[in-house]
Amino acid sequence: MQLFYDPNIQVGSHELLESEARHVVQVLRKREGDFIDLVDGKGGWYRGEIIATGKKQCLLDVSLLRQEEKRADCQVTLLFGPPKTSDRLEWLLEKATEIGVDRFQPIITEHSERRKLRPERLTKIIESAMKQSLQAWLPRLLPLEKMEQVIGLEQNEIGLMAWIDDTVNEPLIHHYPAKRDVRILIGPEGGFSNVEAMLAKSNGYHWGSLGANRLRAETAAIVMLRDIALKNQ
Amino acid sequence: MQLFYDPNIQVGSHELLESEARHVVQVLRKREGDFIDLVDGKGGWYRGEIIATGKKQCLLDVSLLRQEEKRADCQVTLLFGPPKTSDRLEWLLEKATEIGVDRFQPIITEHSERRKLRPERLTKIIESAMKQSLQAWLPRLLPLEKMEQVIGLEQNEIGLMAWIDDTVNEPLIHHYPAKRDVRILIGPEGGFSNVEAMLAKSNGYHWGSLGANRLRAETAAIVMLRDIALKNQ
Repeated sequence: MQLFYDPNIQVGSHELLESEARHVVQVLRKREGDFIDLVDGKGGWYRGEIIATGKKQCLLDVSLLRQEEKRADCQVTLLFGPPKTSDRLEWLLEKATEIGVDRFQPIITEHSERRKLRPERLTKIIESAMKQSLQAWLPRLLPLEKMEQVIGLEQNEIGLMAWIDDTVNEPLIHHYPAKRDVRILIGPEGGFSNVEAMLAKSNGYHWGSLGANRLRAETAAIVMLRDIALKNQ
Repeated sequence: MQLFYDPNIQVGSHELLESEARHVVQVLRKREGDFIDLVDGKGGWYRGEIIATGKKQCLLDVSLLRQEEKRADCQVTLLFGPPKTSDRLEWLLEKATEIGVDRFQPIITEHSERRKLRPERLTKIIESAMKQSLQAWLPRLLPLEKMEQVIGLEQNEIGLMAWIDDTVNEPLIHHYPAKRDVRILIGPEGGFSNVEAMLAKSNGYHWGSLGANRLRAETAAIVMLRDIALKNQ
């Protein structure tokens, strides 16, 4: 199954987003009378019958298949220090989207080496992973912020931080009761400082371990997202 | 902490492997009297005092810190159809090593597009991930084989296959009792054929789901390894 994405899709006659139209017409060579499946990134599943095509145009007759109210039973927000190499950053976004996340909140911390992002490019990667993994909700990429600006927990939201010290070595996921909104805090390559760990703790975050092996920042993020997805499965 | 790897390391006077020596001397600029930590990929942890250095040489006085009997309580073997792009293949090996695996068994299946590997390059990636994640056991990369040659389960080994049909949709990890040796079967991009799924089943593999989202082959592999690591934590 192949899925297309158009955030402005509407029922009835609809001109498909140009980037997607090009793929439908020039790569897949679809023609009048063929059908394609689409999502709007806001929970809507659609089917479109191709009415007319041009080189960069694809006119559809669209019907709504179903509307999902939300991506999952709970909202998952990933606060993360963006890895400094682009490969690792892009890989993190792709894999996190496949596994399941609602919001990416990149953060600047004491040990951050990357303090700029290219949101257009990164959003393309997230869109592509959403389609590839057959989901109808597009995870939101929020603007880069200082950690202290965005660590506050909502009421009923669980905060989880990959951090261990001499007193704490329990698996982090043990602090997560299924079906609850959650905010995960993952540092950059250099990790968090002690001050940052204490700040998170005073904001209500639980500390815990992801296992005996030292994980790279991007690995820690996807491992934690998987633990949450599995617990909610 | 930074870890070095030398499969031939021995207690007493020892000339460090050239590739590692170069890094110690030229990049880290370590000198006589400095200490480095090493593993042998076979469970041994060592400390070496630098006795003498050259451009590509590093003579150590080595002592054994401890010998781990095995990597973990159980042996984890990953049978996988290598992704066709090198990036995705290398990423899979890196992340699987970080998360925890004993043996990589690449397989050729009906839908395989990649039928050749470059084991030297891939082994370098595994070595690097082992050091990065602070482990003393080097996962073994076995030669590429036809699936049917290598799917046989050992006595007491659990077989897990990411495969669902109309009758099976249970989480795959539910079939895994903690602390048991396990053989995980992950297809190439095109997935397994029905015949291959039946063959695995007749060999004693359990079928199950990795969740609602469609995962790329390499994502499925690391998600499954993480589920096992978490269950054994």
